Amino acid sequence: MSRVGIIGAGHGVFGRRSDATVQELAFEAFRLAIKDAGISRDELDATVVAAVPEYHKQRSVAGVVQEYLNLNPKPTWLTEVACASGSAAIRTAWMAIKSGLHQVVAVIGCQKMTELATAEILALMGRVGEVQWESIFGTTFPGYYAMFATNHMHEFGTTHEQMLQVAVKNHFYGAKNPNALFRKEIQLDKAMASDPVASPFCVYDCCANADGAACVILADESRAKALSKKVVWLDGVGCATASMSVLRRPNLVGLPSAVEAGQQAFRMARVAPRDIKVAEVHDCFTIAEIMAYEDLGFCKKGQGGKFIEEKRSYIGGEVAVNVDGGLKAKGHPIGATGVSMAYEIVKQLRGEAGERQVPDANVGLTHNVGGIGQYTFVHVFRRD
Amino acid sequence: MSRVGIIGAGHGVFGRRSDATVQELAFEAFRLAIKDAGISRDELDATVVAAVPEYHKQRSVAGVVQEYLNLNPKPTWLTEVACASGSAAIRTAWMAIKSGLHQVVAVIGCQKMTELATAEILALMGRVGEVQWESIFGTTFPGYYAMFATNHMHEFGTTHEQMLQVAVKNHFYGAKNPNALFRKEIQLDKAMASDPVASPFCVYDCCANADGAACVILADESRAKALSKKVVWLDGVGCATASMSVLRRPNLVGLPSAVEAGQQAFRMARVAPRDIKVAEVHDCFTIAEIMAYEDLGFCKKGQGGKFIEEKRSYIGGEVAVNVDGGLKAKGHPIGATGVSMAYEIVKQLRGEAGERQVPDANVGLTHNVGGIGQYTFVHVFRRD
Repeated sequence: MSRVGIIGAGHGVFGRRSDATVQELAFEAFRLAIKDAGISRDELDATVVAAVPEYHKQRSVAGVVQEYLNLNPKPTWLTEVACASGSAAIRTAWMAIKSGLHQVVAVIGCQKMTELATAEILALMGRVGEVQWESIFGTTFPGYYAMFATNHMHEFGTTHEQMLQVAVKNHFYGAKNPNALFRKEIQLDKAMASDPVASPFCVYDCCANADGAACVILADESRAKALSKKVVWLDGVGCATASMSVLRRPNLVGLPSAVEAGQQAFRMARVAPRDIKVAEVHDCFTIAEIMAYEDLGFCKKGQGGKFIEEKRSYIGGEVAVNVDGGLKAKGHPIGATGVSMAYEIVKQLRGEAGERQVPDANVGLTHNVGGIGQYTFVHVFRRD
Repeated sequence: MSRVGIIGAGHGVFGRRSDATVQELAFEAFRLAIKDAGISRDELDATVVAAVPEYHKQRSVAGVVQEYLNLNPKPTWLTEVACASGSAAIRTAWMAIKSGLHQVVAVIGCQKMTELATAEILALMGRVGEVQWESIFGTTFPGYYAMFATNHMHEFGTTHEQMLQVAVKNHFYGAKNPNALFRKEIQLDKAMASDPVASPFCVYDCCANADGAACVILADESRAKALSKKVVWLDGVGCATASMSVLRRPNLVGLPSAVEAGQQAFRMARVAPRDIKVAEVHDCFTIAEIMAYEDLGFCKKGQGGKFIEEKRSYIGGEVAVNVDGGLKAKGHPIGATGVSMAYEIVKQLRGEAGERQVPDANVGLTHNVGGIGQYTFVHVFRRD
């Protein structure tokens, strides 16, 4: 079986980027990625763009990105699965290469979220839940995840303090990431005292919308080896879905799609959860990271609260999780997030993560959730 | 090289479908497709959904479709490239199968366009053009294509009457298609007298928005042969882009992306334009079909007006084009259109197109344009 490798990665600054259009954000990351790969744009066969279209005034974003990057007439298309769009694009590029159709493909995740007013964004986000039966009751995204939190507390005795320890960790590392939106550490007592959002969540339980872009360049085995001395291999791709309606889920203490996608990716890459040294998981809310520990098998179901409390997801623990700050501190430009996760794993596996480097990181993972778990994509990366 | 085959196809009724949600439309087509393939949903490995998200109240449509079709936890994701989204989904499914990741994949194109008011739709559509430099001047979709029409008239002497002969043909065949929005023939003089839209276009030059869905099921060579006695092979996939800004196009008398995508698909399938017996081309406006004849090499550049005038694109002519009614008479639910085109080619190559059957159709083609040609996807199909 031939492999697919990542030969370049680039990342822009996440934040309120009123200085740039969405195509300019895309260029920022793309420029760094092709420079990192040491290739020119002419060596690309195609691009796959990840973005959630409805946040942009500009419709059909792939078209303006392709033009602005001066990549016409090369093929492009866009993938969308809410907050997991970036990982769907990586999966698509992986398939394009494995199929033999293309040899070198750039994946560009880009999103401007600040073109719209906050109320508009909240309304749009609520409608990533099931519209016909659920969002008519005024569901919001924090509200959905708060239900997971309360169920997890009830079922396993998880505490709000444990949840906020996720935020403390992610801010601790985010402070070391020059591309992060929030580059400051926070203290648990201050986090506990922040304004309420949706019980039990307060402000520090929630990630922040942001503008930004990230880019990774994938190549087939022969081109990857020819072009790069530091290839990171994408050896496992997993994707699974669950019902959009939370009403139809078996429980609200985990994401069945994450369990299934993780198992697929582990199986394909022939690794076990304990082999993962560094992981990027989808911490849109603090409880989501706790559930990810469990769903991915880093600990048993119900033990996620203890896992963070005992700092087992810090560098030096069993698996270093979200050491780029995660969605929480880095910010969450929804179309870019999955690609940003892959960027971090590439840097980590190449030993180029600077202050936030995980020692001896040779196998890494991304866990990217769309919506409230109706999609999860898990990818396993390896450095030989 | 192993092949990818289409083993089933289903099509819903296009029109103002206030009777159905988008997931119900998807089910309508999906049910017919799996029945046609003679498989159960359990035999599917994944789905790819095509839709343009911003027309729906329900965000992230792939999730509700997957749930409503009872396909959780199988993978799904959505592709978007404006009006070519359906073909991008077929390309993605083709790659998924060729890569060895999946064996059987359903592609579901679905779109509700009538949830929004007409003015909202017009505004959204204008923004599929370049927003930063063009749509601020009030560009609309008919306006963009009217520029192509006037340029074509100026450059080659094409007449408005020739353009409307495209509409007459497509209505002639649309009247025979039970899934079409407009099931009635029209006369040239009546079409010429219809209300003006954007000079030179009048109402009958323009396709109509519609709700609807279509579905095709793809399988790898071994599964296709095992499951079906009437496989239609997808032997050539082409995709190319052009600048979003029409300002930056070399001319406005054709689509460079269509020329390039066509050549890719012909090359891969090892056929020439003259081998194509039946074609579905993107007639969003009458001039678009005339340009498609030329861009695909059915006739020389500038001869498209004569091509329709001489009825060379009717059944019995050199290549039968849009004998399902095309976007013009069938209606254009943007996410569904590319899949609907593939449906028609499958039916034609299997000899199951009834009243509108093209005799001896063994090689067919779809030509699906996104926006104003910033993307074109061309697929070549063959029956052995």
